[in-house]
Amino acid sequence: MRSLRVSSVALPIEFGDETSNFAAARAALQRAEPGLIVLPELATSGYVFGDLDEACALSMTVDDPRLTGLADVVPDGVVAVIGFCERAGEQLFNSALVFDRTGTLGCYRKAHLWDEEYRFFSLGAEAGTLMDTPIGRLGVAICYDIEFPEVPRRLALAGAEVLALPVNWPLADRPAGEHAPETIQAMAAARASRLPIAIADRHGTERGVTWTGGTAVIDRDGWVVATPDAHGVASAVVRIDASKALGANNDVFADRRPELY
Amino acid sequence: MRSLRVSSVALPIEFGDETSNFAAARAALQRAEPGLIVLPELATSGYVFGDLDEACALSMTVDDPRLTGLADVVPDGVVAVIGFCERAGEQLFNSALVFDRTGTLGCYRKAHLWDEEYRFFSLGAEAGTLMDTPIGRLGVAICYDIEFPEVPRRLALAGAEVLALPVNWPLADRPAGEHAPETIQAMAAARASRLPIAIADRHGTERGVTWTGGTAVIDRDGWVVATPDAHGVASAVVRIDASKALGANNDVFADRRPELY
Repeated sequence: MRSLRVSSVALPIEFGDETSNFAAARAALQRAEPGLIVLPELATSGYVFGDLDEACALSMTVDDPRLTGLADVVPDGVVAVIGFCERAGEQLFNSALVFDRTGTLGCYRKAHLWDEEYRFFSLGAEAGTLMDTPIGRLGVAICYDIEFPEVPRRLALAGAEVLALPVNWPLADRPAGEHAPETIQAMAAARASRLPIAIADRHGTERGVTWTGGTAVIDRDGWVVATPDAHGVASAVVRIDASKALGANNDVFADRRPELY
Repeated sequence: MRSLRVSSVALPIEFGDETSNFAAARAALQRAEPGLIVLPELATSGYVFGDLDEACALSMTVDDPRLTGLADVVPDGVVAVIGFCERAGEQLFNSALVFDRTGTLGCYRKAHLWDEEYRFFSLGAEAGTLMDTPIGRLGVAICYDIEFPEVPRRLALAGAEVLALPVNWPLADRPAGEHAPETIQAMAAARASRLPIAIADRHGTERGVTWTGGTAVIDRDGWVVATPDAHGVASAVVRIDASKALGANNDVFADRRPELY
């Protein structure tokens, strides 16, 4: 039975203040416990771009020293994920960098764009991605990606042991006592594939958008096992072993009927 | 904007007492309002078979007059779904009959078997099914089928307007304040595909198994909009129109990237 410390951080992000946002990211990364740490989508820039010029001004290439320098503050044994506004030639992507103390491990570009993101971003070429890292086989998806059940399922079937999910969830109406609808999608995806999920969301407001504040760790049973502490960190040790057993006599992968789907 | 009255019934079922169970089914069907009405999985027999002989003794063919006779009590404008233990030659299936006042419209055989069901039942040849009925394009799946996100997704992509889900959910531990995990799967499936779902579950206990009591109607937003009234009927009018819009600028089908899954 394998287990892993998984943490997600409700990072304090100020729209457009890259200096402050990188400082906040470094502070969170320095405190990270061995395992996985996930910071929000577009954590270096903020989310609510007014126009394309503003998005371009807050974009950076994947080898920008401010980004790659984050590796220097990460403790040994930590794999980190942070969302940023990526510039690649003439295109912008809503991306997530994955890195550890040795440097960049990979970069994922969001495949499903929400609302006005189409004004700024190009579509990524993968629907979630997989990376083999020192802490295990990591799945990465961003925000609206999780609302497509194909994404976590695909990653889990390909061996993802845990899913990092940087998000910026605008607050939606919901009935009293219910989780946010996006949280419910993540809980269902986790249980369906016995796949823990680390959600790093925004909290508070930005330019009139109120955030859901959905930062959480969800275990393979689909339950929220951690929400942010006083430092904004949701952290839990979760099972990540390969077993897909559900109950005594079932296995959610072996019981599939892929020839019928 | 199309809408439909959808009802699911927490039918009082006595294990092995077919006379009583058919009487309960007829009583519920007679009271049905125009629209869809769903009764539980294995409603004619009960669920907790002791051995194969018992399952065989409580099985019936799809043209058994006790089953087909249910059509006679269904009001005009109602499409009904009931789970039963189907005998077909040497095989048993965990099936659901779909019918209206004109007679049988179709029969679905469960494709994913839970726990000891493997002792009794053969696997169905479809993962959920679609039927064009007088009230619209109906999806049908049974119990554990819903835990495979491929099933509701497949049916919704093929045009299902509402999903009938007869279940027998054994009660599982869950954190305080949470829905049953199977309910969460259904809520997520409903929202992901903008597909209302009618769940007819068991309540109380049977041969030492305590049921979840998850009878509910879930709307296309993924919220539980009805639970059982004093007669055990959960009923609501839900939107079933073809729009897959989510928010102002997104569409959960058009936004898919099927080439990447």
